[in-house]
Amino acid sequence: MKSYRKELWFNLPTRRGFVNITPDVEKCVKESGIKEGLCLVNAMHITASVFINDDEPGLHHDFEVWLEQLAPEKPYERYRHNGFEDNADAHLKRTIMGREVVVAVTEGKLDLGPWEQIFYGEFDGKRKKRVLVKIIGE
Amino acid sequence: MKSYRKELWFNLPTRRGFVNITPDVEKCVKESGIKEGLCLVNAMHITASVFINDDEPGLHHDFEVWLEQLAPEKPYERYRHNGFEDNADAHLKRTIMGREVVVAVTEGKLDLGPWEQIFYGEFDGKRKKRVLVKIIGE
Amino acid sequence: MKSYRKELWFNLPTRRGFVNITPDVEKCVKESGIKEGLCLVNAMHITASVFINDDEPGLHHDFEVWLEQLAPEKPYERYRHNGFEDNADAHLKRTIMGREVVVAVTEGKLDLGPWEQIFYGEFDGKRKKRVLVKIIGE
Repeated sequence: MKSYRKELWFNLPTRRGFVNITPDVEKCVKESGIKEGLCLVNAMHITASVFINDDEPGLHHDFEVWLEQLAPEKPYERYRHNGFEDNADAHLKRTIMGREVVVAVTEGKLDLGPWEQIFYGEFDGKRKKRVLVKIIGE
Repeated sequence: MKSYRKELWFNLPTRRGFVNITPDVEKCVKESGIKEGLCLVNAMHITASVFINDDEPGLHHDFEVWLEQLAPEKPYERYRHNGFEDNADAHLKRTIMGREVVVAVTEGKLDLGPWEQIFYGEFDGKRKKRVLVKIIGE
Repeated sequence: MKSYRKELWFNLPTRRGFVNITPDVEKCVKESGIKEGLCLVNAMHITASVFINDDEPGLHHDFEVWLEQLAPEKPYERYRHNGFEDNADAHLKRTIMGREVVVAVTEGKLDLGPWEQIFYGEFDGKRKKRVLVKIIGE
């Protein structure tokens, strides 16, 4: 069994944003030399997400509006977590979007459906944060 | 290490619906010959879900009502994604329900709790769609 | 390839609660002898969750308030599932929080980010319930 590990770093200029990391993860699979296995991609921070959906700007706008309805950023005082911090909403938004995805590796490639793209979801940006890619297989 | 891959195909006659796929996934585990490992089951489409919950029609009705409250299908114009399409709500509903499950394989069987059943969740049906089953182990 | 399996048991005195199980899972990784691999941690019950977030009491209070807004416990009659049972809300709350996490194992340890902690989330307690830890790797 082979294993591979890599950290992807991000520093978004905005509080919230989505980054398509599919090419980065595909590159990791290639580097790993693994032909058949499982690829875990997870946010290492608890106010960020890794998720799979469509790379379509209208949908990304819909996600932003929807997440603000389900877990509004303000007023900050609505959350008990916001004593020294102001990012309670980011913890909730990331819970909706998910921490991680597990993707099959088949014949040396990410085994994704036709429209599946892997995204880093940032909900408390303007700082350096990481995604972990771990692949095991043969 | 062994690996196994199979696609399960669906074509639901309705826009939304749940299908219990536990027997299909159990059959995959048997076919794989893998005794100890991990089994990934994921929707290959971004308006569908694979999730684990109870096989109880009352609960499935509750899920339908609840998801419509959290991410209503209509009016279609409420979503920017709905230019040429009308399925933005399906992307959001599937986000709540999740893309994938990872289930342990132990002694050649799915290692599920007493009430755990694996479901395909369709949120934009009336077309052919796929689920990927990938198993690795020994 | 090595594999390891363990059940963690819980019996919370309250209907809802969060338990930090990171030390228990870390102990499993040590016991397994696995240095590089993947660790699946999942609730074996469909009214409970395993999730990763911050070990901060204010945030846990915010989760409780937020989940009650998204999927209220009462009135029980609002859910069709609640014929002989009263726990439909627990099925929905656990759906938001997630069934499982997959964590990388690197150099014999859980490969977690600086604030990542693994929690058991109970939404229908006062009874014995289980979490499954399954680790594969080498």
